[in-house]
Amino acid sequence: MNLTVVGLGLIGGSLAKDLRTKGIAKTIIGSDKSLIHCQKAKELGIIDDYKPLEEAVKEADIVIVSVPVNATLKVLPQVLDNISEKTVVMDVGSTKSEICKLIQNHPKRKNYVANHPIAGTENSGPEAAIDGLFDKKTTIICEQEKSDPKAVLLIKIIHEAIGMHVIHMDADEHDRHIAYVSHLSHVISYVLGKTVLEIEKDETNIFELAGSGFASTARLAKSSPEMWTPIFLQNKKSLLKSVDEYIKNLNDFRELIANNDENALFEEIGKINDIRRVLDGLALKRAKGH
Amino acid sequence: MNLTVVGLGLIGGSLAKDLRTKGIAKTIIGSDKSLIHCQKAKELGIIDDYKPLEEAVKEADIVIVSVPVNATLKVLPQVLDNISEKTVVMDVGSTKSEICKLIQNHPKRKNYVANHPIAGTENSGPEAAIDGLFDKKTTIICEQEKSDPKAVLLIKIIHEAIGMHVIHMDADEHDRHIAYVSHLSHVISYVLGKTVLEIEKDETNIFELAGSGFASTARLAKSSPEMWTPIFLQNKKSLLKSVDEYIKNLNDFRELIANNDENALFEEIGKINDIRRVLDGLALKRAKGH
Repeated sequence: MNLTVVGLGLIGGSLAKDLRTKGIAKTIIGSDKSLIHCQKAKELGIIDDYKPLEEAVKEADIVIVSVPVNATLKVLPQVLDNISEKTVVMDVGSTKSEICKLIQNHPKRKNYVANHPIAGTENSGPEAAIDGLFDKKTTIICEQEKSDPKAVLLIKIIHEAIGMHVIHMDADEHDRHIAYVSHLSHVISYVLGKTVLEIEKDETNIFELAGSGFASTARLAKSSPEMWTPIFLQNKKSLLKSVDEYIKNLNDFRELIANNDENALFEEIGKINDIRRVLDGLALKRAKGH
Repeated sequence: MNLTVVGLGLIGGSLAKDLRTKGIAKTIIGSDKSLIHCQKAKELGIIDDYKPLEEAVKEADIVIVSVPVNATLKVLPQVLDNISEKTVVMDVGSTKSEICKLIQNHPKRKNYVANHPIAGTENSGPEAAIDGLFDKKTTIICEQEKSDPKAVLLIKIIHEAIGMHVIHMDADEHDRHIAYVSHLSHVISYVLGKTVLEIEKDETNIFELAGSGFASTARLAKSSPEMWTPIFLQNKKSLLKSVDEYIKNLNDFRELIANNDENALFEEIGKINDIRRVLDGLALKRAKGH
C-alpha cells in the first residue's frame, strides 16, 4: 500500500513508523510545508521521499492528514481535490465538528474518514515520532455514516493493526467530551505553568522545591502553540463551558479553604478521590489492550 | 541505631525501608493510632515491632514523625516530652511554619529538626511504602539555627545516605514556595477531577476519550483527604495567594479564547512553554542526582 503523510510531526511520523513496521505501508511519501521537516523525516527513515502536496497524494492508496487543526481546514479540501477515486483519506485532529461541517458537501466526502487517535506526548516535530505510540490506545471515528463503509473498514483495520481500540462517535459529541478530558487539562496546565513562572521572577530557586506532583500537573504546559491555539479556538464553545464549570468549582474549593471548613473540605476531597476508579480503570484497560 | 517511626504510612514506611536497607537503622519500632497499620507494617517487615507512642520513643536514637500535619501539632510535643536528651526527632510534613511556631519554646526544641522530603506518590498507608522513594530527591531542613548542630548534621547524613540532596530554608519561605510548586498543583488537580466527574453523570463513557494528558493532570486528585485537608488549612495564607493568582491567570487565558485572540493566545502559550526549561532541568538534575 502506498501511504502519503501530510504533516510530518509527532503523530504523522509515529503513524508512518508503526504502519511500516506492521508491514502495512510499503512506500511512504511525505509532504510538509517545512522543508526541514521533510528532510529530517527522510533522514530518519520515516518517509521514503517527499513531494509537494498535489503530487504527493496523487498516487496514494491512503492519505493521512496530520497537521494542526486550522491547517486541516485548508489542507483536507486540497487533498480531496487531488486524490483518485480509490484513495482513502483520514485526519488525526483533536476537533471534529468544524472540519466535518466544512467538507460535508465535497464531491469526495465519502473518501474521507474523520478520525482522532487519542495518543501523543508534549513534544513535536519528526524527531518526536516514536514507535508504538498508539499501542493499547483508543481512536475515534466520527460520522462514519458519511464515509464509504469500505473506507471506514480500512481505517479501522489499520488502527487495529497498530494496537488501537476503535470507537465511533458523533462529531459534536466528540468535541463536547474531548473538551473535558483533554482540552481542559491543557488549559489548566498552561495556567499553572504561567502562574509559577511569574512567581519565579520574584522568588529565586522556587523550583528547587518542585516534586513529581508539579512535574505531572505541569507536563502538558510544554505542548506547542502551533497545535493547541487552533484546537482551543475551534472547540471554543465546549471548552469555555468546561472552563467555566472549572472556575466555578475552583472558587467553591477556594471558599472551603478560606472558611477553614475542615469537614466539608475533607468530604469534598474524599468524593473527588473517586477519580481513582476512573484513572485505575483506564490504566487497567490499557494494560489489557481493552 | 534504634529508629522509631510514628505514623506508618507511605513516607514513614518508605523511610524505614530505605534506612534499614542502607544499614543505618538496626531496630525499627513503629507507632500508629491505627492497629491495622501497625500489624500490616510488622507483617511487611517495615518495622520489627510496634508500641504505644510514649513507650516507642523512650529508647529511640532517632524518631521520625510522619503523620498528617494537623496530627503533627499534637504528636510532636508528646514525642519531645517523652524522649531522652540524646534523641533526635524529625518530621516530614509539607508545612513548616505552624509546627515550628508551636514548639519554638519547647525545652527540647534543640532535639527537633524541621524537615520536609519532597517525595511521595498519590497512594497512602504502609502498603504504599516503596524502596528507593527518596533517591535523587530533595529534602528541606527549616530553621536549622534552632536545632542542635549535631542533630542537623545527623538528619543531613541519613538523608544523604538514602540518596537525597539536602537544602536549608526559612520555614515561612518554605511554606510560601511550596504553596506554588506543590499545594497549588493539588488544588487544581482536585478541581479537574471534580469537574470531569460531575460531567460524567450526564455524559456516559466520557472517559473512553481520556488519554495520558488527563491521567497526568488528574493524578494528584487521587491523594488522600487525611493528608491534604490539614496541609491546605495550615498553609492557607500562601495557598490562597497562589490560588487567587491562578484564578486571575485562568480568567485572562479564558478571555483570549473567548475573544478569538489567536495571536495573543499563540504568544502566551509560547511564553508558557518556558516551563520546559524548568521541567527538563528538574529531570536532568534528578537523573544526575544533583
